[in-house]
Parts: sequence; C-alpha cells; structure tokens
Amino acid sequence: MVHAPNRPPAGAPPVRINLYSDTQTRPTPAMKDAMIRAEVGDEQHGDDPTVHELCDRMAALMGKEAAMYMPSGTMCNVVAILTHCGKGDEVIAHETSHILHSEGGTHAALTGVQIMPMKGPRGMFTADDVRAAIRPKTRYAPPQRLLEVEQTANIGGGAIWPLAQLNAVADVAHEQGWSTHMDGARLMNACVGAGIAAKDMVAGYDSVWLDFTKGLGAPLGAVLCGDEEFIGRAWRWKQRLGGSMRQAGVCAAACIYALDNNIDRLADDHANAKALARGLRQIPGVEVEEPDTNLVFFDIRGAGMDVATLQAKLQMRGIAVSGLGGRVRACTHLDVTAPMIEEAVTEIKAALAAA
Amino acid sequence: MVHAPNRPPAGAPPVRINLYSDTQTRPTPAMKDAMIRAEVGDEQHGDDPTVHELCDRMAALMGKEAAMYMPSGTMCNVVAILTHCGKGDEVIAHETSHILHSEGGTHAALTGVQIMPMKGPRGMFTADDVRAAIRPKTRYAPPQRLLEVEQTANIGGGAIWPLAQLNAVADVAHEQGWSTHMDGARLMNACVGAGIAAKDMVAGYDSVWLDFTKGLGAPLGAVLCGDEEFIGRAWRWKQRLGGSMRQAGVCAAACIYALDNNIDRLADDHANAKALARGLRQIPGVEVEEPDTNLVFFDIRGAGMDVATLQAKLQMRGIAVSGLGGRVRACTHLDVTAPMIEEAVTEIKAALAAA
Amino acid sequence: MVHAPNRPPAGAPPVRINLYSDTQTRPTPAMKDAMIRAEVGDEQHGDDPTVHELCDRMAALMGKEAAMYMPSGTMCNVVAILTHCGKGDEVIAHETSHILHSEGGTHAALTGVQIMPMKGPRGMFTADDVRAAIRPKTRYAPPQRLLEVEQTANIGGGAIWPLAQLNAVADVAHEQGWSTHMDGARLMNACVGAGIAAKDMVAGYDSVWLDFTKGLGAPLGAVLCGDEEFIGRAWRWKQRLGGSMRQAGVCAAACIYALDNNIDRLADDHANAKALARGLRQIPGVEVEEPDTNLVFFDIRGAGMDVATLQAKLQMRGIAVSGLGGRVRACTHLDVTAPMIEEAVTEIKAALAAA
Amino acid sequence: MVHAPNRPPAGAPPVRINLYSDTQTRPTPAMKDAMIRAEVGDEQHGDDPTVHELCDRMAALMGKEAAMYMPSGTMCNVVAILTHCGKGDEVIAHETSHILHSEGGTHAALTGVQIMPMKGPRGMFTADDVRAAIRPKTRYAPPQRLLEVEQTANIGGGAIWPLAQLNAVADVAHEQGWSTHMDGARLMNACVGAGIAAKDMVAGYDSVWLDFTKGLGAPLGAVLCGDEEFIGRAWRWKQRLGGSMRQAGVCAAACIYALDNNIDRLADDHANAKALARGLRQIPGVEVEEPDTNLVFFDIRGAGMDVATLQAKLQMRGIAVSGLGGRVRACTHLDVTAPMIEEAVTEIKAALAAA
Repeated sequence: MVHAPNRPPAGAPPVRINLYSDTQTRPTPAMKDAMIRAEVGDEQHGDDPTVHELCDRMAALMGKEAAMYMPSGTMCNVVAILTHCGKGDEVIAHETSHILHSEGGTHAALTGVQIMPMKGPRGMFTADDVRAAIRPKTRYAPPQRLLEVEQTANIGGGAIWPLAQLNAVADVAHEQGWSTHMDGARLMNACVGAGIAAKDMVAGYDSVWLDFTKGLGAPLGAVLCGDEEFIGRAWRWKQRLGGSMRQAGVCAAACIYALDNNIDRLADDHANAKALARGLRQIPGVEVEEPDTNLVFFDIRGAGMDVATLQAKLQMRGIAVSGLGGRVRACTHLDVTAPMIEEAVTEIKAALAAA
Repeated sequence: MVHAPNRPPAGAPPVRINLYSDTQTRPTPAMKDAMIRAEVGDEQHGDDPTVHELCDRMAALMGKEAAMYMPSGTMCNVVAILTHCGKGDEVIAHETSHILHSEGGTHAALTGVQIMPMKGPRGMFTADDVRAAIRPKTRYAPPQRLLEVEQTANIGGGAIWPLAQLNAVADVAHEQGWSTHMDGARLMNACVGAGIAAKDMVAGYDSVWLDFTKGLGAPLGAVLCGDEEFIGRAWRWKQRLGGSMRQAGVCAAACIYALDNNIDRLADDHANAKALARGLRQIPGVEVEEPDTNLVFFDIRGAGMDVATLQAKLQMRGIAVSGLGGRVRACTHLDVTAPMIEEAVTEIKAALAAA
Repeated sequence: MVHAPNRPPAGAPPVRINLYSDTQTRPTPAMKDAMIRAEVGDEQHGDDPTVHELCDRMAALMGKEAAMYMPSGTMCNVVAILTHCGKGDEVIAHETSHILHSEGGTHAALTGVQIMPMKGPRGMFTADDVRAAIRPKTRYAPPQRLLEVEQTANIGGGAIWPLAQLNAVADVAHEQGWSTHMDGARLMNACVGAGIAAKDMVAGYDSVWLDFTKGLGAPLGAVLCGDEEFIGRAWRWKQRLGGSMRQAGVCAAACIYALDNNIDRLADDHANAKALARGLRQIPGVEVEEPDTNLVFFDIRGAGMDVATLQAKLQMRGIAVSGLGGRVRACTHLDVTAPMIEEAVTEIKAALAAA
Repeated sequence: MVHAPNRPPAGAPPVRINLYSDTQTRPTPAMKDAMIRAEVGDEQHGDDPTVHELCDRMAALMGKEAAMYMPSGTMCNVVAILTHCGKGDEVIAHETSHILHSEGGTHAALTGVQIMPMKGPRGMFTADDVRAAIRPKTRYAPPQRLLEVEQTANIGGGAIWPLAQLNAVADVAHEQGWSTHMDGARLMNACVGAGIAAKDMVAGYDSVWLDFTKGLGAPLGAVLCGDEEFIGRAWRWKQRLGGSMRQAGVCAAACIYALDNNIDRLADDHANAKALARGLRQIPGVEVEEPDTNLVFFDIRGAGMDVATLQAKLQMRGIAVSGLGGRVRACTHLDVTAPMIEEAVTEIKAALAAA
C-alpha cells in the first residue's frame, strides 16, 4: 500500500534531476544552520518563541489576525474543514481539488462533509457556476457551508486564479453565509507569478494556509491563518488530531529562513518551467500546457507512449517525473537548475523516440 | 425549515388531483382492515410474527437470504451504507442520485463516505464509465467500496435501467472487490414496466430495498434485503439509529396487503403516465420526456413560465405537482385515475395559457 | 446476534404472564379503532393532521414550544444528542444510563460524544456530584455540553428523581452553559407516581421525550419536545436518520388514544408492582428493592439460583421476566392484572424452591 | 483557550528548575548535531532513510514487525484506535487514562468509540476487573474491541504495571477476541525502572508506541509499532490526519540519538524522583506517593494550601510544577539535576510555610 511512484526500478541510478515534486527539496546548509540556532520551547503549551515568530510573520504576510503551525498542509485542510463545518454540511470545491482526490476521503471520514464537485477549466470555476450550485434550503438538501479553492490549482496545471475571479466566487459564498477557505499549498507561486501581494490575494478568504515544504524548501510544516476566533477553535482540533508538537521551533526556524530567502526566487522556478514547456513543445507528439507557475503538464499520447512507461525510462536515466490524471507532470523547484531543464528535454525526447 | 412545497397557498381548495408524489397515497379500507387484524409482538426483540411474515415474503421475492423491516427508505440507504462501508470509503453513484441530493448529506455525516458522482443520461451510467472511475490503490485516494444504483432512477425521469446494463456495472464492481447496493424505492415499477421478475432484476446486487409507501400504497415502511451476514450486521445499525420498533406488525400488515394487491396494478399507473405525457405534448411550448414508469418530467420554459408559478396556479385549481431539477414532475399512483389525467392536462394547458 | 432473551425455550408454553417489559403490550381493540379512523397525510412533508394533533398535545403537556414524532425512544435520544452536541463534546449522565449501555454505543458512533459516567444510588446523582465533575476549560479536556437524566431511572429500579434534585442538577448544568436532556421513556410513571404534573417535572430540561410503547400501550412511537429552534434543527437529523415517515397518523392516533386513556391507570401498575414486591419479599433468600413505579428488581443469589436459570424455569411455566445487571426485573403494565401478580409470586417461589 | 499553566505570572523570573513536565526538555548540542547531519528524503513517500532507520530500530526494540514515525504521541493513540476499532465499538481503559481526559474527546469525535472506565489503584486494573466488564453480545450493548493500558500510568503516579498483571489483562482481552494497545508515552521509564527489556514488556500488546519528547529528550515525534498488516492500515490514517511529513529525518535523527544516549540515564531521573519524594516527606502537611519512576505526586492540603497557589508561589521563585487531579506533580528529566532537587525541596518548604 506504500505509494512511492518515484522510487527507481531495480538497477536505476540515483535521481539526478528531480522533477517529481517540489516536496522533495532538501534543506540547505544555511537553512539547517538557522534550525540549530533556534530558540525553542513547548509548542503545544504555547511556549515556543520561534513558532510564535513564524506565526506572527505569517499572520502579517496574509493580513489575518492569527496563525497556527502544523506538521503538514493536509492537516491544515483537515483542521480548517473541521473548524468551519459540522457533520452533513456541504463544501463547494473544484472537481479536481486535492481535498477530493488526494487526502484519502478524510473530510467525509473525520468532519463528515460532502464535497460538491464544481466543473471549469484549469481547476477554476466562476461566480455564475457557484450561483448555479446553490441548493434550496430544505431538510432534504445538505446545508452548504464552505467554498474552497486551490491557489495555484495543482491538477489545473499550476494555474493562477485571477484575483477578480477569486474574489467573485468568495463574494457569492459570503452572500450565502458560507465561509471561504484557500488551500494555498503553492500560494506564494501564485503571488510571485501574478505580482500580487499575499494579503491582497487572500483578502476574500476566511482561512488560508501556506505549505513550507514545497517551493519554499523547508523540511516540515505548514501555517494556517485566520481570525482569532477561528484559530482559537482550530487549536482544539490540532490537539485532537495529534498535531500539537513539542520543541517545534527547530522546524519553524527553517520556515522563517524560507520566508526570508526562498520567496523571490520562485520566479526562477517559473522561468525554468516556461523553458521546459518550450523545449517539450519541440518534441513531436507532445502536447504541453503553458505553465503559469512551476508545474508543467504534458500529454504524450501523440508520441505513442503511456505515462508509466515514460516514467520508468526516465528513471533509468536518473530523472524523476510524476503522472497525474493521465498526463505527465514535471515540477521545478530550488533543486532544479536551468541546465538540468535542457538536459531533461533532451532525455525526454530520447525516451519518447524509443516509442 | 419545514419543506412542504405542495402545501396549498392561502385560499387554495383542497388537493383534488395529487400528482405531487406517490408517497402521498392513503391506506384504503381493505388495507386498514388487514392492519387491525394483524397478529403483533415486540419487533425489536424479533417477536412480531407479521413482521417476520413480511420479511420472509420479501426475501423470497428478491431472492435473498434475509430481510429487515425499517421505518423508511432513507433508513434503508443509511443502514446499508453503514453496513457496507467504513469511514473514508468512497461510493460510486450517479450524479443525480437520491443519496447525494435528498438525504441531507447523511452518508458523509453518519458513515463518513465520499460519493463519486457518475455522469450519464437518465440517471444511468455504463460499465465503461465505472472502469474509468477506478482509482489507483494508494494512500492518497479514498478506498472505493460500494457501487449504488437507483432502479427506477427518480431524477433520471423514472427510467428503468436495462437488466444487462445493471448487471454489467455490478460485474465491474465485484471484479474490484466492491459491494453493490440498489436503492429500489420504486423497484416494482421497474419490474412491472420491464416485465422482469424482481429476483432477476436484483441478482447482481448484494443489498436492495423496496419502499412500501410509494406506488404500493402502504402508510409506513420499507424492507432491506441481503444475505444473512449482511442483515445480521445491519440489525446493529438499525438499533443504533433507533429504527427498531415495537408492535410494528400493525404497519407490516399493510405491506403484506400491498404485496398481494398493489403490484400488478402499477401497470395502470404507467399507462396513466403515458397518457399524461401524450396530453402534455399537445401543449405548445411544453417538452415532455417519454416516461418508462410512473414519473412524467416536463419542461415548460418554452411556454414562458417557471416551475413555481405553474405549481401555484395549479394549486388554486386543486392540483399538486412537484418541481425537481428545474423541471415539473407529475407522478401517477393508486389515488390517480384516468379521468383525473385528462382533467390535469386540461388544467395545465389552461394555466400555461395565462403565461 | 439476534437478542431475544424472552423467547421461550423449545417446548415452552406461550407466555401467559408477561413481566418481561412494558414494551410488549399489544394494542387494544379501542386503540386500533382510533388508528383506523385517523385522518392521515404525508408526515415527512408536515401534512399529517393526526401527527400534528399529537405533537400539539405533547408540547402542551410538557410545557414546551414544539414537539416531533419519532419511530422510537432510542431515536429521540440519538436526535437530541446530535442536536445538542458536536463531535468531541462530553455528556454527563449516570453510570447506569440507557445511553451508555443499551443503545449500542450509538452516541459515540453517530454524534461523536464521550459520556462521563456519574455515580450515585438508584440511577441518580446530586448537584454536588455534577459540580465535582466540571472539567477545566483547556484544549486537553473534552468540552462539556449536556447533562442527561432518566426519569424514571430504569436500572436504578424505576426510581423517581425527586423534583428538587432534578432541578438542582439542571441548575448546575445551566450555570455552566450546558444544555439538559431528559430521557422520559417512563416519564408518566414518574409523574403519576409522584403526583407532579409533567410540565413541572420537566421544567428544568431543554429537551424531553416520552415513549408511547411502554406503559402507555401504543404499538409504535415516541415524541421529543423542546423549543422551536431545537425542534427545527432536530428535524434535519430525523430526516438524516430516516426517521421521517409517511402516513404516520395511523400510529400517532394510538398515542393520542393513550394520552386520553392510559395515563391515570399507571397507578394500577404501580400498585401491582408494590404487591409483587411484598409477595417476593416473603420468599426466603430473595432481596427486593422497594419499587417507586412499575419496575421490581430483585436479587435471588440468596436463594442459590442465577438469573438465567430462573428465567428458563419461569418460561416453562408461561411467565416472562428479564435480567438486568445481575438482578431479575419484573415489569407491570396494562396486560398484567392483580391476580397474575399473585400467581407470579407463587410460581417464582416454586421455581426457586427447586434450587 | 490557550492552556499554558506553567507560563510564569507577570514579574516572574525565567524558569530555573523545570519540574513541570519531561516534555519540556530542550535538544542538546550533540542531539542537534545529529539532526543536521541526517540524510533525509520525502517521508510520506517512504523515501526518508533516517526515518527508516528509526522505524527499523524501534521495531527491533519492541519486538514487532513494523513501525511508523508520527508527529506526536497523541497521534499514535488516535491512529491506533482508528485502526483497531470502528464506530460504536467500546475500548476498555482505566478511568484515569490519558485517552479519556487529556485528548479532547478525540476518540469519540474521530473514531466514534465509547471508553469504558475501569477502576483500580494507581492507574491499573486486574484480569478479574476485565472479566467483570465483559458485556453480553447483544444488539443493545456496544461491541467491545480493544483493551488499552498506560505504561507507566501517568495519573496513576508514574506507576509501573507489573509484567504479570500486564500480561494477565491482555490475555483476557485476547480470549475475548479484542485487540490490545499500550500507550507507552513513558514506556522506557517502566523498562528501566523494572529492569525488563522493552520487547518482553510489550509482548502481550498488539500495538505500542513510545514518545521521544518526554524523558528521551527529542524535540518532536513518537513511534507506533505493531505487525505489518496493522501498520499498513495505520498509514492510511496517518495520511488522513495529516501526519505524513516530508524531510522528517531531521527530527528522526534526534530520536535515534536518544535511543543511543538517553535511555540508561532515565535511572538518574528515577533516583532524583525518589530523592525529591524523600525531601518532600519531611515537610509538615505534605503527603507524598512513593514514585516508581520520574513522576512525584504530592498532596498539600494538609499544609493548608491549594495547588494553584503553590504553583504561583514557586513560579515567582523560578520553579515550575504542574497540577493534576487535585495533586501537585513534579517531573524529573534530563534538564533536572540532583542539586536542583535539593533546592526545589527547600523552595517548596518555604512556599508552603507561608500558607
């Protein structure tokens, strides 16, 4: 049951160019140095000064009253939905969303919510779509309570929701008395890509979280932000899930380091992604979606190969990519350089030539 | 929050022609006579002989090992899903299904399952659709555990799943190790309409229930069928939900009466539905779906009126219809006669003429 | 897994004197007559006039704003706790309570509450006990939300909570911001036994239900009462559990009949219980608790016999009793007459003599 | 709602002698050095070699097939109970257990289990107690599924379950077909205290976890052990709770360091605890329980002071202790030295003298 699709087949060399996921970055010496110098305390008792500093910085960055450090982004989604919703409520989210496909059915299992899958290109939907999804308020229909978006939309190709659209869907939700939640696993990619400040980007959302283990390069942790009352109630769920930690400042220090050093450089990842898309587009039979950020999705059916075969061939060449929804996904991040992109294109071309 | 859409507006006459739903039939004198003559006992202790007789008859009719009497069809769905599934499992069902829209989000709330909404015309999907919906078996994807169908498909227009298609989707489910469940709220309409014996119709389904309060005309109750082991476990959930009753034989006697007297006559309801469809089709601007059974869905947008307006106008004329998914629904049953159908067509025509 | 402890062993005669439970009364001809004359409608649409009449009568009797008809008393407890509490809340209740031992763990399963078991003689606890059970308001302790009592206390020997004590524990709860709920399965026995009007007895409780299938002799149903807002929210859970019914007026009519005819006569059951206790006390080795109402608990260990053996011996003589918590329980009700009590004493004496 | 009872009052000096909890140890330079030298990978993909090494070591130490790294001990309990039990099952545990009082009602909230509180001195119960708690297997009683113990028993005074008693209660559980789970937050204290190897101590338990953030001094993490099948299913729950991490090897390295360096020295903590108990016993009005391990509980009511007052007074002297169940708890650990113990006794004596 272990899911480790990028584990090399027997005889494969170590991974040299890791386009599998930005979750696989390793902490740099400078980041580690920040970690061991951190002042720490008992996080679950509210006594870790480095965790406090991280939370204060995040609340300011997102323009929210309060913030809470958690072991993972999935836990941010779990805690947020447990805090916003009750049993039997309905959440409005895109049909490709992470909460629907990649979190093991946890929101039905733990909160007891039903997710209404919205349609729309690139992981996004419109205010009109939301209006059309409003249910009558009867005893028969599940009560609708929360609208959720992913910024950037992962299976949507790393697409950036335009700010106006993001606000428009949130406005419909608020008119209905629903709350709004943003899965900001790669939010800073959206902010850097669109040139919009985080607090403006998330202004329409009652809760939002940022993952530090993706493009930001920290080993562990995500931060959930919202108003004081929300975070107060969310703490109880963090405790119940076992998400309260002890001397977590060791890890929070890496996140602070990332805030200081790894945000602006996401632009490099986006440039690398565009370069990769350009290169792949030259390969016969390959269809490439134009990337907004650091994810490049491409379709190789025209080249006569399936995703698993390409993955295996590339692994024998020391290159890791992932497959999502029938497409190949290549992800750029701080362990991927411009020359690696050139080499990756060459290798993918060679692998597909053997089809 | 009370949902009573067919309650007449102030000043409206009593309902004379009730096409609102077959749930609104009233027990006849002969049925009531059977009720008061019933021998009864403590149902929750397994001591009600009339409930036993009903369960034995239903198990035989459906070709299953065992059966259990319940206060409602919704409870049959709730208990079946609680018994088949665990928290975080996924159920495959049509996007128009009753369990997704009309049971208040109960399956997420109580069992903790996620429902994957399948597409397809008239409330049905195909074996290929099911194959395409199979998820990889990873820690990230919700484990798939149950396939559910509605026979007939209510929002699908009262459509009858062809037996081959019903069996084909069940076969894919069983190949995957999933269970299969049939919401047979109006199953006997399908059996009578298709001329197929119930036990053949449900052979591919591990559990199935029949509602006695719809076309069969009983005041209360539904029966869930399955194998001994399944019904044994289902009893625990019936008890936990508070579905165990005391001298329920009073009501079960009405169901036995319905089995003896009210099945074959469903053919009359279907004939009335066809006559209604023919009549409505003559009205300019009305689009009518050809009914398979006792539900007639029609679209009046071409006549320049919305559903709520037509409902209100008809109520002033003593006629009740319902609205479902933007269409009007008229339902035939044992309190609706052929002359009432003619009159209903006349009145609907008159009401729409005023648009 | 079927639990039918009073089913006679092979070769046993039919039960002639049923002291097993007051749940096993059968509807009388007059009650059945009321049932078939009832005007009915679609209960789940709020259209059954007889159900409305029952609910109006019950709200008035209990001095509450609103009432809701349900298939069983267990469902009243389930719906009430789902409506009062959220996941992870704690309910304060006696360690012998029905919700802790006889409802299959449903409140943990469905609502997700933890029950704190209070100690105290005869199924009751005091205001001081409640004060001592108040938890600190930290993230570690489950939030306390509801205090529950049983009036009469079943395993407590059918004991009647004194009104002052009932109000005192409710006052502590309300001071803490908790809600209060009364399991009134046999509430009218308490009211008749204590000579206190129901609305005075339940004044300190935010919700209360009465079972009609016990001493009141109806075949099916219980009614939950509370304020409008509570019952409004409770309706959604009734719907989700599948407790909404159709022409339920048939059964509600029996409950109305019971309100009119079967309350005052509970005094006869109490007199019979006292007579039974007196008789049993004459048997060597038998220890009898003095009954407050219609339940007589006695301990036969001093007579050298265990409960199951006595039950089996009595069944061969056509007499049914139950065993609860290591004691024998005999229950009087409208199918039990004074001569039957005398006979039961004689038979129990004979059965024990064979030890 | 933030629970930070040891946060010093305004004007208090920094904590100099921290007897509040062994959770508050800070990583030493040598431990930090191990952390930054660790080889890491993507833990949730099964690719972190240091996490693998920790899990392999733990499985071997506990004599189990498999192990899983988690962010906290509470999550080990949550995941274990989710994996062992289903909704509505019952867990047998001591009435003072951590799962009942200190995890926010999470097991009712998330798994939906009811916990039966066992009585017995020092947080322990006997095989006879368990036998007396076995429920009849009816539809009314919650199905019993798991027996849970704490080794050492925290509120039981840090008491060590004797191995024979530990095995005897597990034997009764297994005879009944239940599983067994050990909350081993301070298991190594029990093993060192009793001179029994961990794998012998836990042999009767199907699952067991050890916390690394208590006496072992690591900043973050606990490890759950069991057989392959159990850990395989547990992984799904870890994922659903958001307990899967990324480059967690940074933290796992601290745990490996603790296994190598911080187990044997627990004997020093126990010696310090005994010295503290001896010292406190000299203070008039103080009653001290003889410590088995590193927890010293004492009662100061005889000295005319309540727990909160003593805590506040000590905080003004730079000393932190905790209060649990009406008693003071002092906890020794690797940041507490023998001279600090002497000083603590002096200060407590002085503080109580002011009563």
